[in-house]
Amino acid sequence: MRALKYYWEDLLPGSARELGSVSPTAEEIRAFAAQFDPQPFHLNEEAAKASIFGGLCASGWHTCAMAMRLMVDNFLHESASLGSPGLESLKWLKPVFPGDTLTLRHLVLDSRPMASRPDVGLVRTAWEMFNQHGEQVLHMEGWGMFRRRPPEGAGVGSERPGAG
Amino acid sequence: MRALKYYWEDLLPGSARELGSVSPTAEEIRAFAAQFDPQPFHLNEEAAKASIFGGLCASGWHTCAMAMRLMVDNFLHESASLGSPGLESLKWLKPVFPGDTLTLRHLVLDSRPMASRPDVGLVRTAWEMFNQHGEQVLHMEGWGMFRRRPPEGAGVGSERPGAG
Repeated sequence: MRALKYYWEDLLPGSARELGSVSPTAEEIRAFAAQFDPQPFHLNEEAAKASIFGGLCASGWHTCAMAMRLMVDNFLHESASLGSPGLESLKWLKPVFPGDTLTLRHLVLDSRPMASRPDVGLVRTAWEMFNQHGEQVLHMEGWGMFRRRPPEGAGVGSERPGAG
Repeated sequence: MRALKYYWEDLLPGSARELGSVSPTAEEIRAFAAQFDPQPFHLNEEAAKASIFGGLCASGWHTCAMAMRLMVDNFLHESASLGSPGLESLKWLKPVFPGDTLTLRHLVLDSRPMASRPDVGLVRTAWEMFNQHGEQVLHMEGWGMFRRRPPEGAGVGSERPGAG
């Protein structure tokens, strides 16, 4: 069983984490678009040049999915996350082009216990993704649920996220 | 060149469109998760049974991506869409399981001209996705930009979305 590093108590408002970077290729951008968002500016260089984006760019959903991968690899897999009911804000601020290097930062904005479940806490976070020029390309905000740190001496089973 | 059926003027507040359905397989759910959201409950049946979801379920981002594909195939490819700056709300209301049949409905909530660009209008829409039990699994709301219908006699070039 994996060790958990982050419980609700560890996610303090005002804290920030750098969650790594990703650099999509043109092939990856086209492959995602062919499956999920087959608009010309995500598939075809010529059509993209004539579009408002000025060149082939990633589907906004691809950008979100790449951010999620960084989130899982560099944070959630060591956390007592119980998932998220959704987002209150999602902004695609700039297009993402092939070869861009995208860096993810995760900020804790707010935190409160969950009234109906004493073993769970809520955390409001922001996800900020920047390209290699320092321009923000993605901004998301929403609440997530995290299991609270079990009392000393509690059994291992109760530490597993989602096992309750 | 494709014909455009929907300009800003055609998207009337109160109108609704049914945009088809999709049914993800367990293999598709695992493939998306392996690439973008490798949490155990999206990858492994046994781990998923022990989770709060009770069984293997799709990444929320996979659900969004499937909704986008229906949106493009059954609406956007015939529209003068100029893209979206983002969403004001995204709710994952229920888990999506393999073999679920997901149906997308698109509602126009509000509409206004864009002050800074007389050839563009804004439309506030809701995306609602339901499973075969009639349960809503996804709700999204946000603004989109659409080109306005060109005046009679205007050249073909000005009708191409994103060409301006």
